[in-house]
Amino acid sequence: MRFTSRSSSEGVTEQLFTLPFTFGEIPGVLWTPDGATGTRPLILMGHGGGQHRRAPGIVARARRFAAECGFAVAAVDAPAHGDRPRSEEHDRLIGEMRSRMRSGGDVAPVLAEVHALIAGQSVPEWRAVVDAVQELDHVGAGPVGYWGLSLGCGLGVPFVAAEPRVRAAVLGLNGAETSAEAAARITVPVEFLVQWDDEMVPRAASLALFDTLGSAEKTLHANPGSHGGVPAFELDSSMRFFTRHLS
Amino acid sequence: MRFTSRSSSEGVTEQLFTLPFTFGEIPGVLWTPDGATGTRPLILMGHGGGQHRRAPGIVARARRFAAECGFAVAAVDAPAHGDRPRSEEHDRLIGEMRSRMRSGGDVAPVLAEVHALIAGQSVPEWRAVVDAVQELDHVGAGPVGYWGLSLGCGLGVPFVAAEPRVRAAVLGLNGAETSAEAAARITVPVEFLVQWDDEMVPRAASLALFDTLGSAEKTLHANPGSHGGVPAFELDSSMRFFTRHLS
Repeated sequence: MRFTSRSSSEGVTEQLFTLPFTFGEIPGVLWTPDGATGTRPLILMGHGGGQHRRAPGIVARARRFAAECGFAVAAVDAPAHGDRPRSEEHDRLIGEMRSRMRSGGDVAPVLAEVHALIAGQSVPEWRAVVDAVQELDHVGAGPVGYWGLSLGCGLGVPFVAAEPRVRAAVLGLNGAETSAEAAARITVPVEFLVQWDDEMVPRAASLALFDTLGSAEKTLHANPGSHGGVPAFELDSSMRFFTRHLS
Repeated sequence: MRFTSRSSSEGVTEQLFTLPFTFGEIPGVLWTPDGATGTRPLILMGHGGGQHRRAPGIVARARRFAAECGFAVAAVDAPAHGDRPRSEEHDRLIGEMRSRMRSGGDVAPVLAEVHALIAGQSVPEWRAVVDAVQELDHVGAGPVGYWGLSLGCGLGVPFVAAEPRVRAAVLGLNGAETSAEAAARITVPVEFLVQWDDEMVPRAASLALFDTLGSAEKTLHANPGSHGGVPAFELDSSMRFFTRHLS
């Protein structure tokens, strides 16, 4: 793990890093409270499709998790996203997805293929990121939470199912294109977000994914509006949820 | 309005009262923070079917609303509940409902009739309760919230739709037996609770009622478990919701 920059503003330190791994260098960001020492909860955040490790929605949430909850927060570019190369297989599937979106065809099966392809890389990568980040003195081996919506949910479900260090997860804005088999293996508390008028995820598919989660404690929060319109008060709720389960 | 008793414990004063009204005396309870003076938000709470103004779930929530949020809280026996008489019409419908429950018949249409009958009385009664309670110096004419699940939702929907002093409502555990026409006329923020494995309210009916609410800000919270199993953290959420909209 190699740090390439460090900056601080409004009480939060942001460190850019790269982590060498099987599929090439993983570019990432770590946010911690200024002057942090010792072990603390770590939130791993998964960005949405077409986004990257420093997308505005990631940065804004990560800074509040660090500043207000005292957590460490890490985000990396997902495979084929941000500064990372695409394989021919990525290009083929993304091309197929765009072509179906243009023609009004059924995008869901292609999206499921994209998620499965990327998750095959991202699950082991994210485990390596947790390994590396938790070796830092100001992060340590505390409880881990996962936050990810949309693609971040599609990749998050198999990650949370596979990684016992994750104790709680905020997921959502995703449906049938996510592995139901992995969802059923999740047992940690989940807060699951649904946008009631989501133009990308059918309501029934969202509800079905929530239904499939194996967790004894799972709570669904549905709000009116489009895929991108999650209301601000849900971030307050996510912070309380992680505080309750990781602190 | 006549107060019949007053007691205090753990920072909350409980006053029993009766209010004379069209359909006879309404027995009620008012909770306020000890030593309260001046205007504060008022929460009107509607109890569940077969319950009464001092049911454990009402008292526990009311005390926290008063102690932790500084609200005044009022609850009264619904018509045909608690210390109030039943008419022949109540007896006939309740008998019919029990007989259908025993035989596995369709309870929903009878329940809708019960709700409509009782709401015809409770809506004007609750408006009179708000009138009377808000004349007290330690309550005053502040913003009003409504909290009611199950029967408390069935009666609450037409009340919230009719009463402009209500600025926010927590509703839920109810479905198609509630007036969809009234639900569509509600425009204030609503937090709507669904029990995912509710043995009394079909999931689809709950979701349909949430869908019908006319409010621009409405948020659905669904949790696993039975009709009576709303998790404790939802009370924390209700307190924050009312604090956000009434303070």
